[in-house]
Parts: sequence; C-alpha cells; structure tokens
Amino acid sequence: MTDPRLAQAWHDVARRARSSGEAEIEAMLRGEPDRAQRLSLDAAGLHLDLTRHRLPGDALDALLALAEAASIVQRRDAMYAGAPVNFTEGRPALHVALRAPRPDGAANGAGADVAVEVAETLEQMSRFSEAVRDGAWRGATGRPISDVVHVGIGGSHLGPQLACEALAEYAHPRLHCRFLSNVDPHAFDRAVRELEPSTTLAIVASKSWHTLETARNAQALRRWFADGGIAGDALARHLVGVTANVDAAVAFGIAPGSIFPFRDWVGGRYSLWSAIGLPAMLSIGPANFRAMLAGAHAMDRHFSEAPLASNAPVLLALVSLWNTLALPGSTEVVVPYSDALRSLTAWLQQLQMESNGKRVGRDGAQVAWPTAPVVWGGPGTDVQHSFFQALHQGTGVHPVDFIVVVPSHRDPEGRGDALLANALAQREALLRGRSGDEAGEAADRDGRAWLAAHRACPGNRPSSLVLLDRLDPARFGALLALYEHKTATLGWLWDIDSFDQWGVELGKLLAGDIEPLLDPGRELPAELAPDLRALLARIRAARADRG
Amino acid sequence: MTDPRLAQAWHDVARRARSSGEAEIEAMLRGEPDRAQRLSLDAAGLHLDLTRHRLPGDALDALLALAEAASIVQRRDAMYAGAPVNFTEGRPALHVALRAPRPDGAANGAGADVAVEVAETLEQMSRFSEAVRDGAWRGATGRPISDVVHVGIGGSHLGPQLACEALAEYAHPRLHCRFLSNVDPHAFDRAVRELEPSTTLAIVASKSWHTLETARNAQALRRWFADGGIAGDALARHLVGVTANVDAAVAFGIAPGSIFPFRDWVGGRYSLWSAIGLPAMLSIGPANFRAMLAGAHAMDRHFSEAPLASNAPVLLALVSLWNTLALPGSTEVVVPYSDALRSLTAWLQQLQMESNGKRVGRDGAQVAWPTAPVVWGGPGTDVQHSFFQALHQGTGVHPVDFIVVVPSHRDPEGRGDALLANALAQREALLRGRSGDEAGEAADRDGRAWLAAHRACPGNRPSSLVLLDRLDPARFGALLALYEHKTATLGWLWDIDSFDQWGVELGKLLAGDIEPLLDPGRELPAELAPDLRALLARIRAARADRG
Repeated sequence: MTDPRLAQAWHDVARRARSSGEAEIEAMLRGEPDRAQRLSLDAAGLHLDLTRHRLPGDALDALLALAEAASIVQRRDAMYAGAPVNFTEGRPALHVALRAPRPDGAANGAGADVAVEVAETLEQMSRFSEAVRDGAWRGATGRPISDVVHVGIGGSHLGPQLACEALAEYAHPRLHCRFLSNVDPHAFDRAVRELEPSTTLAIVASKSWHTLETARNAQALRRWFADGGIAGDALARHLVGVTANVDAAVAFGIAPGSIFPFRDWVGGRYSLWSAIGLPAMLSIGPANFRAMLAGAHAMDRHFSEAPLASNAPVLLALVSLWNTLALPGSTEVVVPYSDALRSLTAWLQQLQMESNGKRVGRDGAQVAWPTAPVVWGGPGTDVQHSFFQALHQGTGVHPVDFIVVVPSHRDPEGRGDALLANALAQREALLRGRSGDEAGEAADRDGRAWLAAHRACPGNRPSSLVLLDRLDPARFGALLALYEHKTATLGWLWDIDSFDQWGVELGKLLAGDIEPLLDPGRELPAELAPDLRALLARIRAARADRG
Repeated sequence: MTDPRLAQAWHDVARRARSSGEAEIEAMLRGEPDRAQRLSLDAAGLHLDLTRHRLPGDALDALLALAEAASIVQRRDAMYAGAPVNFTEGRPALHVALRAPRPDGAANGAGADVAVEVAETLEQMSRFSEAVRDGAWRGATGRPISDVVHVGIGGSHLGPQLACEALAEYAHPRLHCRFLSNVDPHAFDRAVRELEPSTTLAIVASKSWHTLETARNAQALRRWFADGGIAGDALARHLVGVTANVDAAVAFGIAPGSIFPFRDWVGGRYSLWSAIGLPAMLSIGPANFRAMLAGAHAMDRHFSEAPLASNAPVLLALVSLWNTLALPGSTEVVVPYSDALRSLTAWLQQLQMESNGKRVGRDGAQVAWPTAPVVWGGPGTDVQHSFFQALHQGTGVHPVDFIVVVPSHRDPEGRGDALLANALAQREALLRGRSGDEAGEAADRDGRAWLAAHRACPGNRPSSLVLLDRLDPARFGALLALYEHKTATLGWLWDIDSFDQWGVELGKLLAGDIEPLLDPGRELPAELAPDLRALLARIRAARADRG
C-alpha cells in the first residue's frame, strides 16, 4: 500500500475498531442526535437501518474517509464505464448494463453495441417466453409446456431459483419451474420424477457450456427425453440453451435459434439479469421481468449518484468492513422474514463469499486485513427455533441482517402479524438483552433465583434492517442490486478482484485426476498419498460388496 | 473452576492450541507413525477420518487428559442412567432410551416404566403407520391418504424432514410428506396448494402444544379442512397430534386416540426418535424406522463402551474444541456430498448451536472459553460453485466436515463417480493447496506470470471425513447419533447445559408485546424506544397505503 493517504485511512479505521468493539449501541442511539439521519435511509423503494451496530459516529467518519481514499467513486464509475475491473481476467463487469434502459445502456459508456446486444437478447427471451406462456410454443407431440427444468449450478442456479420463489405470486399458473444443480443422480431423479417429457421444457445454462455438473445432467436429460420418445429434431421443442459458448451448445445438439447468448462480461453470480434469468421470465412474464430489471436499475442509479455518506450500498459495505475489524471472528447472518425469500441467504452467500473470499491484492501481495466473512442464515421465524439461541447467549457476536417484508394481508390466524412482530422482537432482544436482575425476577417467581444467570442475555448485539413495504418485482430487483454493489464496494475497499474465482480451479483439476481411480480396473499410482490410497481402496471394496 | 486437575488440563490444552495453529498437517501425516491409527476409526457402520486437522499428536494427548479431567465418562453414564443432566430444568435427557431395545431400555437405568412407555408409543405409531400405508385408515370420504402435512418447527421439523429426505429410497410410493414450519402464510399456501383435504393427513407436532407458529398453522389447517367440508368428527380421520401436552391437544379438538405422546425428557432437537418421527415412520414404514433406531443404538453402545481414545463422538468433540482454540474465529462447515442428505446441515446447525450456544457454566459464572462455533454449509457439489472459493483462498480458516456416501450405482453419465471424486478432490485441494510456483507454471503457459499469486492456494486447511458405504436406515441413525453425542460431549467439556434453551425466551416475550402494536387502532406507548416507534409508524403507513 504505497498511497500514504490510504494507509493513514486504514490505520485510523483499524485503531478505532480495536478500541470500540464493546461500544454500547443503546448509548449511541440516545447520545448521537444525528445517528438515525446518518445511518438510516431510503433508496430505490427500500428502507435501510444501520443504526444498531457498534459503530460510533466518529468511526463512521473514518470509514467514509477510507472510502474516499480507496477511490470508491472512481472505481465505481470505471465499472459502469466498462473498464476491465475484473483485472485478473482482463474483463469488465457489466451487469449494470443488463438492466439499463436502452439509451442509458449506451450512455453508461458500456458502448452502444452492448446496449444493442442486451436489448436483442431481452427481445429474444420475451418472444420465447410469451410463446411458451400463451401455449403457442408446444412440445413435439403438440401439447403445451407445463413444466420447466432449469439445469445450472452456482450463479446459473441460485439467482433464477431465488427470483422464481420470491416472485411466485406473479407466476404463470400453468408453468412450474424446477431447478437441477447437483451432479448426484438422486437430485436428477427427484427433479424429473413427476414430469412428462412431452410437456417439459429443459433449459441448460452454463457460461462455458463445459461445467461438469451441468454437462452431465444435460446428457442425462437428453437420455430421459429420448426414453420418452423425444429425440432428433423433436428435441428442439424441449431443450434450449443459455451460454456464452454458442458453438459448444450447437455441437451438443441445441438448435441455434434456441440458444440465448450472454457475454463473458456477465459474471456467474451477477447473471440473473442476463439470459440466465430465462426461467424467471418464463414464470413471471416479460413485463414483470423488466420491472425487476427496472428496480435493480433504480438501485444502480442510487449507487452511482448518491454521495458516499448517504449511499446505501456503500454504507452497508462500510458497516460490514467495520464488523470484520471491531468484532474479530464475527460472521454475517442473513435472516429473511419471508418464506418467499427463503433462498436469499444462499444467493447472498455465493455473492459475497465467492466474490470476496480472496487474499491477494492488486499488487499480488497478501492483503493485511480480513476479507469476506462467512455469510449464512435462514428464514425467520424458523431459525428462531434453531441457531438464534447462540445469537442471544453464545460466546460469539454475529451481526444479523433482518430482511423484513410488510405482510400483505391480515388473515384470521394473524400469521402475517406474528411474522412481522417476531422480526421486530428479535432485533429488540438482541439489542436490549436481559440483565441478570430482570431474569432474576422471572426466576424468583419460579423459586429458582440461581437460574437468573442462565436466563440472562447480554444484549448489545448488532443488526441491520432492510424493510420492503411489499415484495414486488421492482423492490426485489433493488434488493439484489443493493447487495451486489455492497459486495463490489467491499472488494474495492479490500483491494481484491471481486469478479474472478481462481480458487475453484484446483479442486476441478484434482477431481479430473481422481475420478478415473474409482474404476477398480485401474492401478492406483504409487505417488498417491498413503491416506488417499487407503481411502480409495476402501471405497472400491465397499462397491464390490454391493455388486 | 475449582478442580485443580481440570484447570491444569484446560491450561495445557489452551497453551498448546495458541502455539500450534499453523501446524503443518502434511508433515504430521508423514511424521506421526500412529496418526492414522489414532485419528481414524470405524464405529456403528461409519468410517471417521480426523487425521487432517492441525492437531499434533501430543495435543491429542492433552485433549484426552482434559476429557478425563472433565469426567466425560461419568457424565455420559449419568445421562444414560436418567440423571437430571439438563440441570437448569431439572430433567434427564433420555433420547438414548428411545432407541434402546426393550431389555436394554430398562437395564440402561432409565427405569422399566420408561422402556414400557417407549415401547407402547412405538407400537401405537406402528399400528397407525401400517393402517395409513396399507389403506385401512381412510379419510372421512373413504379415500386413502396420499399426502401427509407435518406441522412443527425447530426440533419438531428438522429431524423428521431430514429423515424423510435421507431415506426417500425407502418411501411408500403413495404417500408424499410435506413440512410446514414457518408462520408466514406464504409457507402455508405453498404446503397445501396441491393438496386435496379428503386425502390429506395432517400431523401437528409441538412439545408444549403452544408453540406460536405451530398453533397458528394448526388453526389455519383446521380452517382449510373445514373449507373442504371436513369438520367435527370427520376431522379425526385427518388430524393427529404429537405432543407432551395431551390435555391441550384434546382441548384443540384432536381425538384422544389420535394423540402420540412423548415425555418432557425428550429434548426438541433429540426428538426424531420419539413420536415426533411419525412422518418418517409413515414414509419408510415401521421396520425401516426401527432399523434407524437400531443404527442409532449401535452408536449409543459405541459411545458408552469404547475407551475415550477410540470413541468416535468423543474424538469428534475434542477436535471441534481444539479448532475453537487453535483457529480463533473459525466456524464448522458441513458439506454432505449427497442430495438425500441436503438438510443434514440445518439439522446439525440446530443440534450444535442451540445445544451449546451458551455462555454460563454450572456454577452460574461466564465460562472462560468460546463455546459452540457457527455451524453452516450446504450440499456438495453445489457449494463448490458458491462459498468454496472462500474456503480455498479466503483469509479465514474454516474446518469442513465432508459427509460422503459411496454412490449406489454407475450410470451412463458417471454422475455418482463425479460426485464422489469431487468430494475427495476438494479434501485434497484444501490440504495440499497450490504453491505460487505451481500456479505460476499454469499462469506462464497463458503468458501472464503475474497471475500466479492470484491462482495460488495456501493449503493446510483442515477437514474431517465421515464415510458411509451406503445410505441405509441404520447408517443414517448412526450418523445422527454420532453428532448428538459429539454435541453432548462438548457441552460437558465446556461445562454448560446442552439440553436447555433459555436464550429463546426473551424474543418470544417481546413478540407478544409488539404484535398488538401493529394494529393501527392502538396507541403506541410513550415508553417505546424512539427508533422502534418510528419503524412501527412507518409499517402502519405502508399497510394503510395498500388498503
């Protein structure tokens, strides 16, 4: 780190973080008159409350100085302009162009050609989706499509599945979407068990077209269709591809007109907005899909236009960075209080951990700070009956992102109200805690005063709140874009490449070496590590036993 | 901690842990001749390999000394004998009695009455399950049951769902089981959307019968049945209860003969083995359910009989404790390479974090060590395309439990082989890593030598392996019991109560206070914290806007 201003800003943040891990949130809420104004805001239809972190106001100043020193504005603008911000692969990261209205797309600096391509693919997707939805597109035997199987893994899976679930209220009543990601044959059997080949449309989605899991599942699907009498030309009515490698998809046997292309400047974990989002468009229709893009674009504009001090993704990133320093060993817990958003946690986990689970900076040296924390969680209220015990009384402190949707209606059992009340109550419980004295009063009533220590909760545990007045396509798009830009901002603060994923290369190579060794006819090489050798021998024996 | 021997043992472990976080696993594998013999073993049909941790052999000696000093043997025996090991609630924890063959049940010291009750409930469950499975039990209109909806949350949900998924290969072809846990009405609608009341059996499972989510979902289900013409006496053919509060279930309207009881000495997260397991028995049948119990019992016997130094749950616990000290801030990643075990992570997360997410010891004082780490993960190979990037190249070190099942058959696409090869390859990649020189050779070939630093992986990252030769009811039962006993052992080492969950009390209380405030007709109390007050006003306005 040669820039003395940047080094000073980092030093200042780290020094404050070391001394303020135990800062009292309630005292800051009472004592800092501008805290709510500085740490809560509305953007693109979302309300964000970051006041409940162990972050003193003067530390926020230091964090904003760090953001300035790290040139967040310039790097953000470079991303929008199509500069190769994915520097290890020499590529831009242009997901913002995928959701820009056409004139903006060009004006973004991404280039008119990008805007034209994006519009063309959206048109192709829309025409196809309308045809499938209104029954004009039919299977080989003349029946309309009733089921969609989307085959993809990682970024080609998590975003589309999340969108289909989150916007299920907008789904076409005839079309059911399923997702097949795992290479385990059990997952395949589960996906197709209730399906009829003649009414099924399969989408094979792989950027490279060679992703192992997707390639083998695509082969298995082709076999499944053939077993159902659908092969050759007939297959074109049932199998489409989404890829950046059009030639390979054609070679596999996909009809050229049934290939929905995207470019290598679409990262897998930012690909929902591209042709990878096809199952979502099939489900919710082109108009709702475009509303989702528009919501994301609204957040893109906020991110590009709002000053750093009132910029939602930037503030979210700064709070996250702060927590990695002030609360060493902390993780980020994501708890959507919404059944429709139950897969949000998995999407955010990939987004943040695959983007920023890196340790080498732009200069090729190991960075001097911790990067992406573990991101995990699950839907409320379910997880209140699972790991919340540890959040309230465990020895570790783990900030929670509460994603809360105002329930749409009142029902006779008051379930929506109960859901919302529980979200708010858990935030209060984490913050306020319960002192030994308070717990003691309850324990006294039971005649077991000694229990007070076991019933007390320390409190002062941090949380964020993202509130959606409703879960519609626009707010859903904005929510995802909020976290995408948080993630990119963190990558720039940490000076790593958020857009590559070299760490997954080695495992793939080794799997290719090991798979042939499962064949009992192959001699195990002498150079194999003794424990791997013993394990392979054991596995071969177990298989032989089963015949 | 007044016992000087225990204090010395803790001190010894902590001292070694501080100095050995960077211990080289590969060097220990080569240099310790008895490492494989000491740290890998077979128990109850499972193979466990713990050799790949940053745990030197002499540290294992210190850990075993700690286990002795912490009286693990005596505390284990007390649990089996029905002593009130759940000391804050003054109750035994007798899940082992639920899976003991009848004579053992009595001999366990749990008492003959316990063994008799367990046998009676199993008989009642078996009779009912057989009747539903063979079609003798019919709905009110005379049609056989085709769908089961199990309503429960937390421990009443995670175990039964996991068992039904894991043993899907053994499922009755006519019966489909669904699980409803969340209070969000969206979850309810999703659960019943494709169901027909006349062919649906609902199981309401709640230890107290008053769990908020389950109570409201049960009311909603009763309404759904009534809307489908099933009410009054007819409801007895469609609604059964599983509870320790039989009177309340009767008051709700469940026929006394349709209530499957269990006792307060069954903890929620240890309740799969009790009547809570009813949906699993309905699905796989009484014989397979008993095989699952027998598998768990085999692990119970191993845990109670094997010396500490060759006791699988004890070794798993000691390694876990070691990692909390040697790798501060580390979490435990659970990755089942098996689609059927995709919910194992959520079950283990509850088991370990709700059991041991505590901070107060038996003496009522805060413990001096970190307790339960965060437990998270997801199914392989999916997660290789998600967070594995961070495991390989991130700044944090997080030990991984690989749960691997030898695939049952070879298919034309070699998907089972690919799954297994990937599991083994990821373990190798985490251990070996890739040096800058190795990565440089690859990068050189691309003419971009500077990329080597970005493509290198540090390696020396720890993992455990649990290998199942196949996924059958017995091995599945043994797998769960392995982790149950690991969890209990850790609770004893940490000197906390693994069997209570006082930390969830406060949030429930506050939710009860907050829910009425969502009603726009209620005045907001003056003593409400200003930010909660503002949030409630905002939520009321959002609702009013939607009419």
